[in-house]
Amino acid sequence: MNRTLSADTPKKVGEIVKLNGWVNVRRNMGKIVFLDLRDRWGIVQVVCVPSEIDEPSRDALKDIRPEFVLEIEGVVQDRNEEQVNEKLETGKIEVLAKKIKIFSAVSSELPIAVVEKNTEEADLQKRLDWRWIDLRKPKNILIFKVWTLMEQAFREYWTSNDYIEIHSPKFMGAPSEGSAELFEVKYFDRKAYLAQSPQFYKQMAMASGFEKVFEVGPVFRANPSFTPRHDTEFTGYDMEISFIESHQDIINEEQKAIQYVLGKIKEKFGEEILSVFGRDLIVPTIPFPQITMKQAKEILAKLKVPDEREGDLSPEEERKLSDYIKEKEGYEFVFVTEYPVNVRPFYHMRLEGDQKITKSFDLLWNGLEITTGAQREHRYNVLVAQAKEKGLKLKLIQFYLNFFKYGCPPHGGLGLGPSRMLMKIFNIDNVREVTYLYRGIKRLEP
Amino acid sequence: MNRTLSADTPKKVGEIVKLNGWVNVRRNMGKIVFLDLRDRWGIVQVVCVPSEIDEPSRDALKDIRPEFVLEIEGVVQDRNEEQVNEKLETGKIEVLAKKIKIFSAVSSELPIAVVEKNTEEADLQKRLDWRWIDLRKPKNILIFKVWTLMEQAFREYWTSNDYIEIHSPKFMGAPSEGSAELFEVKYFDRKAYLAQSPQFYKQMAMASGFEKVFEVGPVFRANPSFTPRHDTEFTGYDMEISFIESHQDIINEEQKAIQYVLGKIKEKFGEEILSVFGRDLIVPTIPFPQITMKQAKEILAKLKVPDEREGDLSPEEERKLSDYIKEKEGYEFVFVTEYPVNVRPFYHMRLEGDQKITKSFDLLWNGLEITTGAQREHRYNVLVAQAKEKGLKLKLIQFYLNFFKYGCPPHGGLGLGPSRMLMKIFNIDNVREVTYLYRGIKRLEP
Repeated sequence: MNRTLSADTPKKVGEIVKLNGWVNVRRNMGKIVFLDLRDRWGIVQVVCVPSEIDEPSRDALKDIRPEFVLEIEGVVQDRNEEQVNEKLETGKIEVLAKKIKIFSAVSSELPIAVVEKNTEEADLQKRLDWRWIDLRKPKNILIFKVWTLMEQAFREYWTSNDYIEIHSPKFMGAPSEGSAELFEVKYFDRKAYLAQSPQFYKQMAMASGFEKVFEVGPVFRANPSFTPRHDTEFTGYDMEISFIESHQDIINEEQKAIQYVLGKIKEKFGEEILSVFGRDLIVPTIPFPQITMKQAKEILAKLKVPDEREGDLSPEEERKLSDYIKEKEGYEFVFVTEYPVNVRPFYHMRLEGDQKITKSFDLLWNGLEITTGAQREHRYNVLVAQAKEKGLKLKLIQFYLNFFKYGCPPHGGLGLGPSRMLMKIFNIDNVREVTYLYRGIKRLEP
Repeated sequence: MNRTLSADTPKKVGEIVKLNGWVNVRRNMGKIVFLDLRDRWGIVQVVCVPSEIDEPSRDALKDIRPEFVLEIEGVVQDRNEEQVNEKLETGKIEVLAKKIKIFSAVSSELPIAVVEKNTEEADLQKRLDWRWIDLRKPKNILIFKVWTLMEQAFREYWTSNDYIEIHSPKFMGAPSEGSAELFEVKYFDRKAYLAQSPQFYKQMAMASGFEKVFEVGPVFRANPSFTPRHDTEFTGYDMEISFIESHQDIINEEQKAIQYVLGKIKEKFGEEILSVFGRDLIVPTIPFPQITMKQAKEILAKLKVPDEREGDLSPEEERKLSDYIKEKEGYEFVFVTEYPVNVRPFYHMRLEGDQKITKSFDLLWNGLEITTGAQREHRYNVLVAQAKEKGLKLKLIQFYLNFFKYGCPPHGGLGLGPSRMLMKIFNIDNVREVTYLYRGIKRLEP
């Protein structure tokens, strides 16, 4: 017999079905036992009447507790048609058990509950210690269903626009991105370094004539901070395109992709996100608002927000600026453009009219930076001069500089943090909650 | 003016267009210069007649050599309608240049040619040193176009079958997979290890009730071998599903996915793969042939192939076995099942009837192993016993063993090597040729 998913049982009233899942809740009502059986698609109530099940099932039933994994055979009943005890919690469809098989038992007390008895959840650190149990909660599984769709939608946007996918190496031969946040690997008789982004290698694809590329993959940052936004390893989305005129071409591409992706998510999960997280997802119209860093600082000065980072925005400034734009323009998104040279890496191209300003941008979503992008400097001599000006050791980046020596088109791109997007999709403040298995300074387990 | 792709020029006869690309070949015919301009979509011939172009373009034209990156404005002409000099190599559509702009020059001699003058390519090591130039060859770009489609098609299969995508961490806290091929990372005041596969973490998803998952990401192996099949870092495709009855459920899922993916590739790129690589891609029917390891060894004994690895297949045996199945059954694919316990990891489930045999399989494609899969042991006590039997230190894998303590369904899955699939799609013998940027013991650059 094929398995029936919980969500499909209402279509099978009167039929014998086989169900698989976890015991969400067990309720004893005299000799009758009610089991709420949970699978990824929902919960179905199973009624176990001793006289209706066989001997081995009766024995099994005695032991069954929450989070046991079961296979149940039974008949689907529509309790709408009966006298229903109104006190029961679950819906109108139930399965009258005939056979019960235990696939997996719970050998000791559950360290954290899947179904919370009071409204408060266990402490975050404890939940991360037992992450795989925490993830069983339907609201957590929803996050990863949405991630799956979000990633598929971004990829649909890219592939339908003829991008090539690359998988660039995570091992690098030199500490070329600066050693501050770089992880070092013992690599046979030498050292390797873990890529902090696919930046250099996606630019290589431009020198290879790939013209439009994207990459999805892990990036590694030995970031010693404990903020709710940071981790030592996270998934990055990157894209890079050639023959652009300025960073505005990248901005155009990003707002189209985000509109497409949020449209897809709203369509499939909008109601569930609203009912579970209370977040009404808005699909933005194009173009998103844009302001330059200079304008942003003027607005923030008027709002009396302290200017803590010269030429850059503090998290506080990002939030206040987003609030301002939201109120004024009705947008949750705002592109901040034209960051000064001092806060941007050497490879960002500079404005022709002002060599102190880069052709770059960040995208803020409800107060959080989710993207950094720019047109890159593709002219070898200019790039070398900019690297020198920033004090980089040319020897360490020579392999990268070589990409620009034998014909490389003007190009630009961006990096986008999918976990940051998820934080904003669900209104969740901590990146740990939207990461499958978080990694930080003090956390390498489970 | 918007850019016109090379492939779209034939639709624009009589129009003024803007082209972007690399100079593939320059030919001087007296005062007239012919430039074959190459972009990702093809090659278009540009005719530069001094009297037709402006002064700055005339100056630029003098310098232009192969691999310069240009922007050209010109008029599309159909030379079908004219008296054509039959000696010219390119097609019937050409662009009469009006303006030429150099985006990027080639400052010194090209270290390797994009367009080879004789049939022999540069030495592989040299081509890997200058990988970004080597990748400009249309046949190499084709490999990554096909990779993009292959990955998208696998994902379509998975997402349309309701799989959840995970991105599992690459940092692990303990050398849990054995230390032989493990990379060690300096991780603040301790050590971390790079995951050799997402095995443990995709199984965690089964304990989390995700039920069906896939992952695409890098895996790291400190493999000291120099074979054409091995690298220290490569992309892995992984899937894992719950509530299976045996490894046959995984086999079924894999052959359906592969049939779907090869169908998509054949449809879009079949002719190009045939014309460029001489490989006629075959979309297999389901089911693929299956033999047990015992049967495989019997066949190989009859074929007099030396039995070098007890219970496992040597590369030579894999090739000979594949040849045999191909001749006998007309299939390029064969599943080899039921590997003995001694050649499989501790977490492979064993046959109920024979505790020396695992519920596992490999998939061979034209002599190359592209997949390993199995049903996993989900019963805590059995798993612990198997780990002990293999001599594992339980302390190092306790975080993993815990996944099975609080309810974990029966499950199984597989790992598949996309670069190995590409080798077989194109009949290419060396994994370096189908990897964007290869990493090996001696290669961390560029």
